[in-house]
Amino acid sequence: EIRMTSFESMIEFSEFKTNEQGLIPVIVQHYKTQEVLMLAYMNKEAFNNTIKTGRMTYYSRSRQSLWVKGETSGHFQYVKSLTIDCDNDTLLAKVDQVGAACHTGNPTCFFQHIAGNDFDETNPLRVFESVYQVI
Amino acid sequence: EIRMTSFESMIEFSEFKTNEQGLIPVIVQHYKTQEVLMLAYMNKEAFNNTIKTGRMTYYSRSRQSLWVKGETSGHFQYVKSLTIDCDNDTLLAKVDQVGAACHTGNPTCFFQHIAGNDFDETNPLRVFESVYQVI
Repeated sequence: EIRMTSFESMIEFSEFKTNEQGLIPVIVQHYKTQEVLMLAYMNKEAFNNTIKTGRMTYYSRSRQSLWVKGETSGHFQYVKSLTIDCDNDTLLAKVDQVGAACHTGNPTCFFQHIAGNDFDETNPLRVFESVYQVI
Repeated sequence: EIRMTSFESMIEFSEFKTNEQGLIPVIVQHYKTQEVLMLAYMNKEAFNNTIKTGRMTYYSRSRQSLWVKGETSGHFQYVKSLTIDCDNDTLLAKVDQVGAACHTGNPTCFFQHIAGNDFDETNPLRVFESVYQVI
């Protein structure tokens, strides 16, 4: 299956408030389950490629290069919506995630619980989500 | 109402992979609605205060000081759970948010839509959420 959807951004990358490395952090959330999947970073090229291809593209700080998420794993993230925060320094991307978001095979990179209770398990809304899956 | 709940962290701040400023980014999500509210940063002191008081405490990069969210506005964020990602460089906090998360008065800091469709509006799960509110 080839999916290619171009978007247009209402704001240019140059209007974002980037960090010391010229990057903007991007919170990635599953558009249906609302699960937070990962945090990654974009430079101008990554942002423009994301908008152009509809596939989430990041700047890898460790490899210091452009990184189309899923390019090697097949676990692409298809853009559903992009939102920027009040001070223009963080993006929120809602995506359709193919396979696991995390390189460990976990659905989300946030699987190490360090404090408190994970209310996901007891959230009554989850009942409705289960019902919805059946419907 | 005074709410004070201490937590214990399964991981020390020193085990986190911090950025160049010694900070770790924290994604803040509403524990019930799963709405992403904001991104902020913690240093060791902010993290330890969050764990000790159960109130989200950040390091303000602009003011270069500790910042108990809600201290002036009353819009506290009470910790429900903390999770760290696969490479220990980002925290996800699920919180109970008092009032608006954003200083603009918006419920979330992510209110500036820049591309794509916000599927929240059409997501069938929202129907169940509405039903749940009534129940």
